[in-house]
Amino acid sequence: MLYIVGLGPGSKNLMTQEALDVIKKVHTIVGYITYIHLVESMLNGKEVITTGMRGEIKRSQKALEIAATGKDVAIISSGDAGIYGMAGLVLEVASKMDQQIDIRVVPGITASIGAAASLGAPLMNDFCHISLSDLMTPWEVIKKRVDAAAKADFVICLYNPRSKGRPNNLREALDIILQSKSENTIVGIGKDVARKHEIEKITTIRDLDVTEVNMTTIVIIGNKNTYVSNGRMITPRGYTL
Amino acid sequence: MLYIVGLGPGSKNLMTQEALDVIKKVHTIVGYITYIHLVESMLNGKEVITTGMRGEIKRSQKALEIAATGKDVAIISSGDAGIYGMAGLVLEVASKMDQQIDIRVVPGITASIGAAASLGAPLMNDFCHISLSDLMTPWEVIKKRVDAAAKADFVICLYNPRSKGRPNNLREALDIILQSKSENTIVGIGKDVARKHEIEKITTIRDLDVTEVNMTTIVIIGNKNTYVSNGRMITPRGYTL
Ligand SMILES: C[S@@+](CC[C@H](N)C(=O)[O-])C[C@H]1O[C@@H](n2cnc3c(N)ncnc32)[C@H](O)[C@@H]1O
Ligand SMILES: C[S@@+](CC[C@H](N)C(=O)[O-])C[C@H]1O[C@@H](n2cnc3c(N)ncnc32)[C@H](O)[C@@H]1O
Repeated sequence: MLYIVGLGPGSKNLMTQEALDVIKKVHTIVGYITYIHLVESMLNGKEVITTGMRGEIKRSQKALEIAATGKDVAIISSGDAGIYGMAGLVLEVASKMDQQIDIRVVPGITASIGAAASLGAPLMNDFCHISLSDLMTPWEVIKKRVDAAAKADFVICLYNPRSKGRPNNLREALDIILQSKSENTIVGIGKDVARKHEIEKITTIRDLDVTEVNMTTIVIIGNKNTYVSNGRMITPRGYTL
Repeated sequence: MLYIVGLGPGSKNLMTQEALDVIKKVHTIVGYITYIHLVESMLNGKEVITTGMRGEIKRSQKALEIAATGKDVAIISSGDAGIYGMAGLVLEVASKMDQQIDIRVVPGITASIGAAASLGAPLMNDFCHISLSDLMTPWEVIKKRVDAAAKADFVICLYNPRSKGRPNNLREALDIILQSKSENTIVGIGKDVARKHEIEKITTIRDLDVTEVNMTTIVIIGNKNTYVSNGRMITPRGYTL
């Protein structure tokens, strides 16, 4: 049996009971080294297989091969494995194999939801997830989505907002958003959510310093009703109080 | 201290460790009766305060009042409390009070992510959450969002897709979506996810029978690359295999 397990944003506290149970019971754990560290205290006596950052396809194949021998294996992702994580890839690789393998996806708390809880309640109305990584989606498609989301006044969660390889995507995305949203729109930033040195910050599109944003940051841009009260970012659901 | 706790879609298995710990330790639990049932086995010796379906504002005030006396209180939501749940409202009510109360939002697995895991990996590319309930958001705004999301080829998760009070919203939304997406677009349905009688179904926009959709259903509409393999709904991330 192969389990594709979302570990949540960082701390064991935000893992689901099922994810904890699976990690405890499996014989083998396959994952990118950073994610292995997140469950380090639970690895005693287990076979651990790590590969580097770009080893996703190899990792998927390896996990499937081991599961094919009848062992219980967990392949791990941070957050939710089905959100820019390993779940899709593993299922794609599995669908190309001759042998059918039992696979269960174990859901996890994704970065946006973890950050939202720490920021307040920014996701109380309709929202989008958009990844600003153009490694696998053309930048033109991403820009189109950013524009559509801003025009329809969605709350927007930006994953992979900024890295050394693409330092300008966030700035470009914000400029597109500014064509439809006010520069006073509230922005929440969650950096290293549920990890050591976690930082939350609430600002506006105008005052956002993009150089503070890195690859372990999620950026949440409010809708036109989003406001700040008692240091919390709140998007109203629409109740009349 | 007031905890606003997302219980996940249903089973204890999908609650986070923190949610379990909080429910165990608090003195008082406030919630809508259906959600109280989800944690029934953990209520021994606790004060339990329930109100009916439309009692959200009362529930929030009550929970805040009790927390103000110094007790540890949890107010519970299904899924994630910050997604069409109680978190925003409680923070809004709190911001209107004189006394400042310590509040922690405990994130949970939301319905879309729970359903996605059971369906396969439909959320591997950019997606939106849209609630089709027009109780608090004008139907015109909702339709505009549905249209924008379809035009930019987002995967679309529809919350509150259909109820007795608004039997036609889902059909209207699908008709808008069909102006931009093909009728062969894959649709996944999660009904009573992580509860008794859970059902998942994978179909297409054309073949979707809207009468099968009710208030405890989440509808996930794929993007143009979403496909089905081995009975799983997969939206590719974009890897070349
Ligand atoms: C490849 S995606 C993986 C997302 C993950 N599967 C999830 O559901 O959260 C990586 C991006 O997720 C976000 N992210 C993941 N973990 C985070 C954390 N602990 N704090 C803030 N952002 C995080 C960042 O935007 C990062 O660039
Ligand atoms: C008022 S919203 C609450 C959402 C909840 N806070 C969450 O994060 O999942 C209610 C809607 O959520 C969806 N939903 C909640 N629980 C569900 C479940 N167990 N299975 C399927 N859909 C569910 C349905 O679309 C339902 O109409």
